[in-house]
Amino acid sequence: MSGVPVVLAVPGCEPAAEQLRARLGGEEGARRIHRFPDGEVLIRIDTPVAGREVILVGSLDHPADKLLPLYFLASTARDLGAARVGLVAPYLAFMRQDSRFHQGEGVTSVYFARLLSSTVDWLVTVDPHLHRWASLDDVYAIPSRIARAAPAIAGWVRAEVARPLLVGPDAESEQWVAAVAEACDAPFIILEKTRRGDRDVSVSDPDVAAHAGRTPVLVDDIISTGRTMVETLHQLTRAGMRDAVCVGVHGLFADDALDELRAAGATRIVTCNTVPHDSNAICVWDAIAEATGGLLT
Amino acid sequence: MSGVPVVLAVPGCEPAAEQLRARLGGEEGARRIHRFPDGEVLIRIDTPVAGREVILVGSLDHPADKLLPLYFLASTARDLGAARVGLVAPYLAFMRQDSRFHQGEGVTSVYFARLLSSTVDWLVTVDPHLHRWASLDDVYAIPSRIARAAPAIAGWVRAEVARPLLVGPDAESEQWVAAVAEACDAPFIILEKTRRGDRDVSVSDPDVAAHAGRTPVLVDDIISTGRTMVETLHQLTRAGMRDAVCVGVHGLFADDALDELRAAGATRIVTCNTVPHDSNAICVWDAIAEATGGLLT
Repeated sequence: MSGVPVVLAVPGCEPAAEQLRARLGGEEGARRIHRFPDGEVLIRIDTPVAGREVILVGSLDHPADKLLPLYFLASTARDLGAARVGLVAPYLAFMRQDSRFHQGEGVTSVYFARLLSSTVDWLVTVDPHLHRWASLDDVYAIPSRIARAAPAIAGWVRAEVARPLLVGPDAESEQWVAAVAEACDAPFIILEKTRRGDRDVSVSDPDVAAHAGRTPVLVDDIISTGRTMVETLHQLTRAGMRDAVCVGVHGLFADDALDELRAAGATRIVTCNTVPHDSNAICVWDAIAEATGGLLT
Repeated sequence: MSGVPVVLAVPGCEPAAEQLRARLGGEEGARRIHRFPDGEVLIRIDTPVAGREVILVGSLDHPADKLLPLYFLASTARDLGAARVGLVAPYLAFMRQDSRFHQGEGVTSVYFARLLSSTVDWLVTVDPHLHRWASLDDVYAIPSRIARAAPAIAGWVRAEVARPLLVGPDAESEQWVAAVAEACDAPFIILEKTRRGDRDVSVSDPDVAAHAGRTPVLVDDIISTGRTMVETLHQLTRAGMRDAVCVGVHGLFADDALDELRAAGATRIVTCNTVPHDSNAICVWDAIAEATGGLLT
């Protein structure tokens, strides 16, 4: 691969593309996405891409609107002779459906991975929801790199929270919580969660007596409906812990999640800037640029 | 292939699936599409599909909302052991971008065909926009059958319009117009169109003196913005022809297309029932069922 890469934003993800380009270098790719009145789209890439590395940048939250433009951009770049087309997707969708939980269900993490693996040549993402899958290589057929949010989250906690107690709402969250706690040199506890539906979640009572006087900092990879964190906040309140801080790697904030978190006692709600949102307070683009650089060399 | 096929509706396309099943036979497939609050989806197919032929039914107008559910339904059916998964898509999207009209453009008809060809095993559609492509086989890697709307349109014209003159707005429309005219035993004329943009279209003056006293029946495959038909209506009015009828195979009706057609003098606007719309007056499901049956045997 010779020359500087071309960085192309998925529609709506222009600031993300600029975050990457500012760190990695590369040429800002010029492209037009013309939406016909009937919902079809026309793609044009004006920057020459023949023989070059092309990097598409865009998170995959709310995937319906993004998938076709992404697929067409990648196809067009390949058609125009790009040497390789990669995808930097700070949030990777569908990783939570990592098993057939009920008869007849689709394992969308596998199908979506197959689709993306046929669309681009490599993938970079931030802390994908790896629970039953041990690694992206178990589902993705293309080379991938994972950027870790824990160092940036730990930096934020150290700067903003005195005497933090890191709290994970369930066993799945331990991977993020333990990493942040270690980087903060702070203690952590992991609760137990029972999920009965999208919004029906209970969390076991934490044993927090040993941590009186600390500020609870809840950490999870995805805040979607917020039910898991809301239930955790209720448990902490019942246990006498107050002024909780909520930290999400990926803040999807479905429906009124933000209001419900505040109502449940969260004094601050912050997220990494993987999905654009007012709560974005933690920048993870250094880690993304480093992971991307590792795939380019 | 043994046993009756399973007919599964793409979300929102349940009436279409029932139109097919009523003619072709087959078992109505039970499936759940659960939309998570953050825009991701969970698919479940409750009807056993192992070893069976599965037929997905859904038009591909407004493709962004339909593509992922369609892709996941097909993937789930295959995963559950379906012998074959086919798609009946009365309207097939992206066929109009059949060339690179400007440097850097994507040829979306080819890319979309590649995506669908990797999603399902066969395809049935109604009058796809074959202009620069001579056949679906030029772009689709899977077996396909085309159902023709002309017989049903001709039946409607014969029943509803006295002394019709079939009118095609441009050379691309001749294939549909000539077939309808022949089946109606009526004359037809083809105008010439110049397109300068989505909504900026001009059509040459028709030589209609020879057809005085006839009712013009405009026929085109796709009514989207309606600009082509509006301009044709203006030309017919200038030439002294009134009370025009507009017939579209696929009525997408972007923006205020319907109002503009009425304002331009269309007395009736009817479409085939490939894309659900109040204007649907011509049923093409007999032809669709016949084409589908040809692929199942």
